[in-house]
Amino acid sequence: MSGLSDPKARLREICRIAARVFYEKGYDGASMQEIAQAVGLTKAGLYHHVGSKDNLLFEIMNYGMDILDETVLARVQNIQDPREKLRQTILGHIDLIVRARDLEITVILHENRSLQGELREKINCRKRAYVNYLKDLIAEVQKQSGRPALLSPTLAAFYLLGLVNWLYQWYRPEGTIGQAELGRATVEFFFRGLLGYTPEEGTRASS
Amino acid sequence: MSGLSDPKARLREICRIAARVFYEKGYDGASMQEIAQAVGLTKAGLYHHVGSKDNLLFEIMNYGMDILDETVLARVQNIQDPREKLRQTILGHIDLIVRARDLEITVILHENRSLQGELREKINCRKRAYVNYLKDLIAEVQKQSGRPALLSPTLAAFYLLGLVNWLYQWYRPEGTIGQAELGRATVEFFFRGLLGYTPEEGTRASS
Repeated sequence: MSGLSDPKARLREICRIAARVFYEKGYDGASMQEIAQAVGLTKAGLYHHVGSKDNLLFEIMNYGMDILDETVLARVQNIQDPREKLRQTILGHIDLIVRARDLEITVILHENRSLQGELREKINCRKRAYVNYLKDLIAEVQKQSGRPALLSPTLAAFYLLGLVNWLYQWYRPEGTIGQAELGRATVEFFFRGLLGYTPEEGTRASS
Repeated sequence: MSGLSDPKARLREICRIAARVFYEKGYDGASMQEIAQAVGLTKAGLYHHVGSKDNLLFEIMNYGMDILDETVLARVQNIQDPREKLRQTILGHIDLIVRARDLEITVILHENRSLQGELREKINCRKRAYVNYLKDLIAEVQKQSGRPALLSPTLAAFYLLGLVNWLYQWYRPEGTIGQAELGRATVEFFFRGLLGYTPEEGTRASS
């Protein structure tokens, strides 16, 4: 911990290590004593940094949503074409889910039943904002296609989240399907499901 | 418990109640004492029925896979047409995920990190068998289409599992999207992603 003088970097380091302990032992099974040891702090020091066990879990999930913003949204904010923006959003989200470094964080973010009350509502609020971003972008892509929408943007947004978030259950980067192939196949599958054709076919059709 | 003289029915009742306790408190957070109380047995009586806490978790997951067989596979086994069989498989799987009665069972089945060693391998073996069933059926549908496959049956099978299993994260039967609409939209979305067109369009095209 000693090398991390920036409070934000220090909190993130604590979150990452604590996420690993929660992932291995479960939220209820992991004690603050174990987490403090893993982080290299005294138990009092850990409480000083994170407040409480509930708040630590909240900070981990909040960090997970920060990474989502940084990995996905920051990279696409200057893309004007809705179709290309959606394509890059899907690739960025896949990148986040499959990278091993943050596996524990993203798993904890999905399995968020342990968080209660106001803290849970704060995380759900950030999740809803992401779903709304996807819905709006999908609606733009549907409009751009010039054809009647085949399904509601809400359903399409949750289908996309299912396709991509479920990767953590089965996809292994060291397996036979490389990440580039996975990204291309997922983008094409989603666009066909949404529009009936892929971005490339759409470009050919409109040119 | 007194009304359930059939040992299998009794075990299922225990599984269902215990799943609710695990769902609420987490696997590590729930004690065998609490589960025994919820089931209406003494702690010794519960151990007599289920052997150990690990084995109880295994029985819950095994029961979850039994329900999958009964709800999905048993209903489609006499359907000859691959496209119709896949359509009914998707509808059956959706039915299983969205029905409130077994919510806790299906959630526990997905979040299976608490199970270890041989018991975990047994559940994973049953899960693999289901994935293989989906892969084979999807490959048949691709072959039946008479066109080159647009993606590997393996990827398509996991995309389908992502679409359907993720429903537990967001879909509420009492919301604005009814189950019939959800089923229709999901079948159409998946078939478009797989083949580029829906079952109905395929029937029209080949007739």
